[in-house]
Amino acid sequence: MHVPIKVSHLLSMRFVKPCHLGVISSSHTLQWCFASSSPSSKPIFTHKRKMLLILGTGWGSYSVFKTIDKKLYDVMVVSPRNHFLFTPLLASTTVGTLEFRSIIEPVRNAGFRESGHFHLSYATGLDSKKQELFCTSVLDSDLKYSIPYDKLVIGVGALTNTFGVPGVAEYAFFLKEIADARRIRNRILSNFELALQPNNDLSENARLLHVVIVGGGPTGVEFGAELYDFIEQDVARLYKKMQGQVKVTLVESNKILSAFDERLQAYAEKKLKERKGFEMKQSSVVEVTKDMVRLSDGTIIPCGLVVWSTGLAPRDFTASLDFPKNKMGQILTDRYLRVKDDSSGNIFALGDCADIEDMSLPCTAQVAEREGRFLSQFLNSGCDEKICKPFSFQSMGMLAYIGRYEALTDTPQMKIKGVPSWFLWRSAYLTRLGSWRLRMQVPLDWLKTLLFGRDISRLE
Amino acid sequence: MHVPIKVSHLLSMRFVKPCHLGVISSSHTLQWCFASSSPSSKPIFTHKRKMLLILGTGWGSYSVFKTIDKKLYDVMVVSPRNHFLFTPLLASTTVGTLEFRSIIEPVRNAGFRESGHFHLSYATGLDSKKQELFCTSVLDSDLKYSIPYDKLVIGVGALTNTFGVPGVAEYAFFLKEIADARRIRNRILSNFELALQPNNDLSENARLLHVVIVGGGPTGVEFGAELYDFIEQDVARLYKKMQGQVKVTLVESNKILSAFDERLQAYAEKKLKERKGFEMKQSSVVEVTKDMVRLSDGTIIPCGLVVWSTGLAPRDFTASLDFPKNKMGQILTDRYLRVKDDSSGNIFALGDCADIEDMSLPCTAQVAEREGRFLSQFLNSGCDEKICKPFSFQSMGMLAYIGRYEALTDTPQMKIKGVPSWFLWRSAYLTRLGSWRLRMQVPLDWLKTLLFGRDISRLE
Repeated sequence: MHVPIKVSHLLSMRFVKPCHLGVISSSHTLQWCFASSSPSSKPIFTHKRKMLLILGTGWGSYSVFKTIDKKLYDVMVVSPRNHFLFTPLLASTTVGTLEFRSIIEPVRNAGFRESGHFHLSYATGLDSKKQELFCTSVLDSDLKYSIPYDKLVIGVGALTNTFGVPGVAEYAFFLKEIADARRIRNRILSNFELALQPNNDLSENARLLHVVIVGGGPTGVEFGAELYDFIEQDVARLYKKMQGQVKVTLVESNKILSAFDERLQAYAEKKLKERKGFEMKQSSVVEVTKDMVRLSDGTIIPCGLVVWSTGLAPRDFTASLDFPKNKMGQILTDRYLRVKDDSSGNIFALGDCADIEDMSLPCTAQVAEREGRFLSQFLNSGCDEKICKPFSFQSMGMLAYIGRYEALTDTPQMKIKGVPSWFLWRSAYLTRLGSWRLRMQVPLDWLKTLLFGRDISRLE
Repeated sequence: MHVPIKVSHLLSMRFVKPCHLGVISSSHTLQWCFASSSPSSKPIFTHKRKMLLILGTGWGSYSVFKTIDKKLYDVMVVSPRNHFLFTPLLASTTVGTLEFRSIIEPVRNAGFRESGHFHLSYATGLDSKKQELFCTSVLDSDLKYSIPYDKLVIGVGALTNTFGVPGVAEYAFFLKEIADARRIRNRILSNFELALQPNNDLSENARLLHVVIVGGGPTGVEFGAELYDFIEQDVARLYKKMQGQVKVTLVESNKILSAFDERLQAYAEKKLKERKGFEMKQSSVVEVTKDMVRLSDGTIIPCGLVVWSTGLAPRDFTASLDFPKNKMGQILTDRYLRVKDDSSGNIFALGDCADIEDMSLPCTAQVAEREGRFLSQFLNSGCDEKICKPFSFQSMGMLAYIGRYEALTDTPQMKIKGVPSWFLWRSAYLTRLGSWRLRMQVPLDWLKTLLFGRDISRLE
């Protein structure tokens, strides 16, 4: 029973080396075009289709995957994550305004020709001459293999930049993935429970209930906003004694939300500063330990949680690639998202791991998604520059939640703040959610939070 | 700012020894009756109220907590879990039919007089003469303290019995808590993703997709049923190649669902056996390793997941208590749930950790919940045997889901099987869910699963 399925699976790769078995597969001479010719499955005439290999399942890659013409390409995706994450709402999950699974969508739902066309693996290396990608399984580090491609899309995203500050990697919490948000939620709830336990040490309690946010970009500010909603709406109800003791310090060396219109930015700053226990420090962090943060002026802030959100650093895979890069380690591309100095013209890069030369676009979901849709168009056109104009970007604007049902909306047409902007923030994201499942669940979560409060169950 | 709050917190315990600080609190001579007399809070005249200490947040304890008269008692709860778990639906969360947080309810939502009246701790010992309980924090094992009580309710539940079989504790998965269900879900999804990765070894794939369930009680059978729904409804859609390869073996030394009516039991057995890839083994397991299970007849079953659900064993705390117990290590009580041979009459035990002498009730949610409600009545009556008749139990019947929209209903009035019984199963549980939050979320999860399928995103 197993054999035909397995065989078709093996055949679906031209060149497979399962290294943990130490065997080179005999199928390495077979061509991709015979992919589904196993006796058990109806033959699909794939020989007309080129093999499009997409790395990553973030905004850019997922956008390519969803809009590419699957009659033209056999699409294979390699990513350490088998779901797409709606990052603009990630901060809401750290305190339970939304639940984790309400903002993710399994990529398999978007439809693969064969279930073996998604691989839960890291890309580890690239042979651009042989057109071959090297991978390691997320689930078994001994399982290494390679995949051939005709066209390659690199959309692996980026890491949070620690700027080499000691202790950040060990003790600070990032906010990029669901696992990060869950760790933060767990830590917040644990600290509240711990501070309520018989424990004479007042300074220890003050430490447990002090949160330091490093970085005043949208992620840092929105996390702070959600945290304050949680404190005012739920801590006040369920951890009454603690409400007055909670402190939040936001450390930012420049202005917060610096990309926003100046008046909106000033409004946000004013609103945040009004909050009890909130402090803004124009400084930078030079050390993080298990229980404190040290600023550049020597100030020590004892704290129970550090959330670090300060710009991007390249992933190991991106760093390993021998392509021209900018100062931030991003792969340089032309306006067709083709990697610079790659003579084949078959390698594309987009999103946070890439930079279109001379365009200097911000590293946002909006840019990555638009690049993804553009790239699909270009690939669907057969990479024909006559049909497809080079990529151009006109920002639709920016949104940021600042707490207490207020947000900022900064678009070329309008600058709004306050509650109307919050309505816009919620409506805009609702329409951008990628599936009906999410469009059903997200408003229900909002309703549930409104009616019943946030779930403070501490799960391991 | 911190001091008054902290003081009132300290005062809420007569005798607090925060051992990790090595200090004996000066508040140890204060009486509970002054509990909330700190300057910052309105004095509450608690001196009329007795201190009721409840251990655990399962069916029995939570039922006491919800129905006790809080004008009569100051209630304090100590539990390693700050939520109540609706266990009959736990199996549904292992494959995502329901989400984890849809079947739990934070105990703090049920209302404490003060937020410090819930402690996320393990009970570690008891001095019944001094009426004092010893605890250790779940979050900081150095944080040890004691709590005085007037009345004590022991409802700490039980562990899954491994019967000393080697490897069970290390490699098998239990199914008692949300963390267990999450581990199982994660393992199932990981094994599917792993089996799809380039990997020549057919026998390794067969192992990954083989699930062994040990124990044919309701938990084991319902997990098997949910797993089959997942295979038929979602694996068929999203991991097409794998569907034919999945195998499930149910190992049970007796009959499955042996507590049910014989005809219903036979029906369930027939239905399960009809399923492709399903096998039932009347045997027992003698060893579990990382990748196989060995049966008593020597058979070795290579497998990727072992779910172990075979009866109960006492928790360390229960084992440490110097009270009369039955053969299974359960604390013996009289029909007022008072612990046998405790002369004070102030210690009660209920649920899976206890056994009413000469009543031999099954260890079910129904029994524990009924005991809890009875105990509240008895405590509310001032423990007056004239007002309160001893505990009696008439079963409302049993329900079990067997997959494919079929269930068994076994009540004194009726024995039904099949789809009508499944309707009954869902309706009955829906009405039993303890809060409107859950009553809203559970049917929405069912609807979501029906409309969009289960979420196969693999989260760490």
